[in-house]
Amino acid sequence: MDGVATTVTVSTPGGTYPIHIGKGCLQQLSQVVPDDATALVMVTNAVLAPLYAEAVQKSLEATGKPVSVLVLPDGEATKNQQTLDEIMDFLLAHGLDRKAVLVALGGGVIGDMVGFAAAIYMRGIRFIQIPTTLLAQVDSSVGGKTAINHPRGKNMIGAFHQPIAVVIDSDVLHTLPAREISAGLAEVIKYGMIMDADFFAWCEANAQALRQRDEAALHYAIQRSCELKADVVSQDEKESGLRAILNFGHTFGHAIEAGLGYGQWLHGEAVGCGMIQAAQLSQQVLQLPAQSVARITQLVRAIGCPDQAPNFGVDAWLTLMQGDKKVQGGEIRYVLLTALGKAAVTSAPTAQVAKVLAATTSQEVVEVASP
Amino acid sequence: MDGVATTVTVSTPGGTYPIHIGKGCLQQLSQVVPDDATALVMVTNAVLAPLYAEAVQKSLEATGKPVSVLVLPDGEATKNQQTLDEIMDFLLAHGLDRKAVLVALGGGVIGDMVGFAAAIYMRGIRFIQIPTTLLAQVDSSVGGKTAINHPRGKNMIGAFHQPIAVVIDSDVLHTLPAREISAGLAEVIKYGMIMDADFFAWCEANAQALRQRDEAALHYAIQRSCELKADVVSQDEKESGLRAILNFGHTFGHAIEAGLGYGQWLHGEAVGCGMIQAAQLSQQVLQLPAQSVARITQLVRAIGCPDQAPNFGVDAWLTLMQGDKKVQGGEIRYVLLTALGKAAVTSAPTAQVAKVLAATTSQEVVEVASP
Repeated sequence: MDGVATTVTVSTPGGTYPIHIGKGCLQQLSQVVPDDATALVMVTNAVLAPLYAEAVQKSLEATGKPVSVLVLPDGEATKNQQTLDEIMDFLLAHGLDRKAVLVALGGGVIGDMVGFAAAIYMRGIRFIQIPTTLLAQVDSSVGGKTAINHPRGKNMIGAFHQPIAVVIDSDVLHTLPAREISAGLAEVIKYGMIMDADFFAWCEANAQALRQRDEAALHYAIQRSCELKADVVSQDEKESGLRAILNFGHTFGHAIEAGLGYGQWLHGEAVGCGMIQAAQLSQQVLQLPAQSVARITQLVRAIGCPDQAPNFGVDAWLTLMQGDKKVQGGEIRYVLLTALGKAAVTSAPTAQVAKVLAATTSQEVVEVASP
Repeated sequence: MDGVATTVTVSTPGGTYPIHIGKGCLQQLSQVVPDDATALVMVTNAVLAPLYAEAVQKSLEATGKPVSVLVLPDGEATKNQQTLDEIMDFLLAHGLDRKAVLVALGGGVIGDMVGFAAAIYMRGIRFIQIPTTLLAQVDSSVGGKTAINHPRGKNMIGAFHQPIAVVIDSDVLHTLPAREISAGLAEVIKYGMIMDADFFAWCEANAQALRQRDEAALHYAIQRSCELKADVVSQDEKESGLRAILNFGHTFGHAIEAGLGYGQWLHGEAVGCGMIQAAQLSQQVLQLPAQSVARITQLVRAIGCPDQAPNFGVDAWLTLMQGDKKVQGGEIRYVLLTALGKAAVTSAPTAQVAKVLAATTSQEVVEVASP
């Protein structure tokens, strides 16, 4: 893409594609639309539409191809079969063929749903990701994981389907609520914890700049996160091994999200807190030094994520964590750290998990939300 | 598989797997179940369950792994989102993890739906196809096309997801209604028409033996069909080119199915009739010799498929054919023949399509069924 500061390439068996990162990318979308696309469908939500839909639509129309726009309601609660049906109906009603290209303009919810719609419409069509939250920019828009939620679990229905391009315009972060910046930074610091101790240290040094949306700091954080994620995904597209390390903090985090009811905590907030829990479990099971646990806890706090999980009781916690997709033959698999920058996937004795829960959850008992 | 007469191998980027063809295969299913499978789920329909479910279940239980069984209602009308939801609920309620393996015991409807469920459950798990109709044995169970229907079109929602094994027990064909044998033979003779003139001639010589379920004739027809399909699918898993030739007769056939309402004609019957129509269009557009058209028409009749399509009127026909997934930029793409055994994909002038419709449809006008 002309004039874009950085391009990171993702190479997987399912496709090789660029992640363009820079200010003003949204104005140059026509450069990532393939010549043989017969039509473009932008899907976004009701919060983003008034902010960016017109600019993106204009940028897409510069291709000379027909552009249609579907605006969905906002929120994690909409990431379900019903909204997916709505997308499918729209595509079919507009007579879109296999050479049509979808454009997902939004955060993780829009990206996951539109990506999944692209994965299964006529057995798979192409799509472009334009992530508008920090979390989506550094995580969910890269790597081809698409899904919807099911009443019985988050992301239980989905597919691996790589986008043909990811376009990250850092300008869109200025309209994001502070809470969403913190949630996105949780995934940023995660990459440091699991695979790059230097980057972790950089995050420690730049935590305040990142929270204050310093442009250069955010650009580097996004770039490095995309590079690290692209590296993992290129080695293991379908999560048969290595890729699982990206779920550090997620087994605890998903339990928090499910237990409180999706949408109460932001995904990144739950992951942030879950990483403190996973760090403590790493100390118990894999002898991660106490000092590393302290640094992780400190950094989660510094980026503004919660450091105390809800207390569902040990049994409810275990049941919630059983719902995780990493479970195999009934055994919960945790991503833990052997050192800062080094992750491993392993099981853990229930007694040690209980000890961690006792140390990391609120005194007050919280009832699990009905699904 | 021990003692199995024939094994055909399918090699695609999405996976390499065996098609085992022989009498009594159903008794040896444990041989195709991977060691690391955590659980097995057999999905079948209410018509097949009393005939084969017990034997298949026993054969699966020989692995020592937990086996659960889901029995769905029978019929093309069930190949929809609602039934897919039912499968998903069953899998989640039974706590199945990513290492569980689905077993599809049934015809094309069960195979397509269970395959699609496997494609999207937790972003993809493994499945085994046990096709019980001739049509599924020679076509839909091989090649990884999975889908459900949408009110706006057949197979509009789906994925490419290869099974880990296909097990074809010719014994199951004895309980099949005669109409289903004819419908299956339509896809058998199709392979001859599009890519193997010798096999077409063999089918002409053996049409009666095939209809009468002569064991040796059926075995060879299934084997040769699987070989030819495996050859195409290995070259073009995701239908970006060559694979489209497998849709010979299907643009017309799908229009018949959609126009009459799914389930009125069997898929193979519609394809049989559609191949006569496509042959006539081939004569108009690509100068296929009249003698070849006559041989195709004669063989479709000989296997017991209808030779006259319903008359929806030209406009309704074109609208129905516009719904086909091969449409690109609004133009209908037809698979036609340049010679017996040689197919090409092309557009066709509306006037010539109208001429073919006039010659191949009933005098009486038939109203298009509401979706």
